[in-house]
Amino acid sequence: MSVYEIVRSKRAIRQFSDQPMPEADLQAILNAGRWSGSSKNNQPWHFIVLRQRERLIALSQCGQFAGHLAGAAVGIALVTGDWRERWPVAFDLGRAAQNMMLVAHERGIGSVMANIYEIDQARTLLGLPDHLMCYAAISFGYPAIADDLTRPPQPGAKRPLADIVHVERW
Amino acid sequence: MSVYEIVRSKRAIRQFSDQPMPEADLQAILNAGRWSGSSKNNQPWHFIVLRQRERLIALSQCGQFAGHLAGAAVGIALVTGDWRERWPVAFDLGRAAQNMMLVAHERGIGSVMANIYEIDQARTLLGLPDHLMCYAAISFGYPAIADDLTRPPQPGAKRPLADIVHVERW
Repeated sequence: MSVYEIVRSKRAIRQFSDQPMPEADLQAILNAGRWSGSSKNNQPWHFIVLRQRERLIALSQCGQFAGHLAGAAVGIALVTGDWRERWPVAFDLGRAAQNMMLVAHERGIGSVMANIYEIDQARTLLGLPDHLMCYAAISFGYPAIADDLTRPPQPGAKRPLADIVHVERW
Repeated sequence: MSVYEIVRSKRAIRQFSDQPMPEADLQAILNAGRWSGSSKNNQPWHFIVLRQRERLIALSQCGQFAGHLAGAAVGIALVTGDWRERWPVAFDLGRAAQNMMLVAHERGIGSVMANIYEIDQARTLLGLPDHLMCYAAISFGYPAIADDLTRPPQPGAKRPLADIVHVERW
């Protein structure tokens, strides 16, 4: 599939099977994040790989909608500095996360983002230094329902181009 | 090329040829942004397409390192609300921007990010309503030097996995 088709067919997958993720796929996903561009090449990220079930469950309790982490084959916690300091911190993390999720999708591995609300709880769980935080994590895994990965988009889920594209000015 | 190869071979392209970008490619790039996932499906974005040279030059003067916009075939200004309000605003824009740049790369079109520092100047230029801002824009175009698109990475430009990946905890 082309990148265009991978981008188009990417769905948020929240329910995962018990099938473990091959190490080679995990390495590819981590490299996809690592290779991402960033403002001034700052690479403002660390990735913490979680596979132990009790740790995934604990991280899933750090965000209101993060429950899917509890069932992920692999969780990747995105670690960075204070996002309020500079726009590119969160923006560049978003770029890296998208790289990872697209490469996963290409390999038949589903994924979805989790926002972490309980920053101190997550810091304790992950053993982070004081100046680093985990604001988001990604769940990865084979989907519990095989064709979930390629389910058609919900009609109307995405705003049409006419609503979001402007020419030359607003 | 696989998504993995596209992600791996993506380079920041800052010098563009005069060749215009076909409309079909622009539509594909805009759709790639539109299809991106976002927190609570908020889709916190508008895309302003700039092709008029004088407008591209004016936007290139709104950021210290945004000069490349002046020579782009197409600039896409990313428009959103106040990024300081919520982590996902910038993060989700980063995801959408990455989708766009990867689809461009697949089609032989180079790209690079510009951060916009002169927010009010950009708002006036783009005619944005008061509650919307442009913090970043993307330059797109065919590279001035053909093999710039696939030049090898600078050795040591990206931190190795061993420096950024942690297992289970910091």
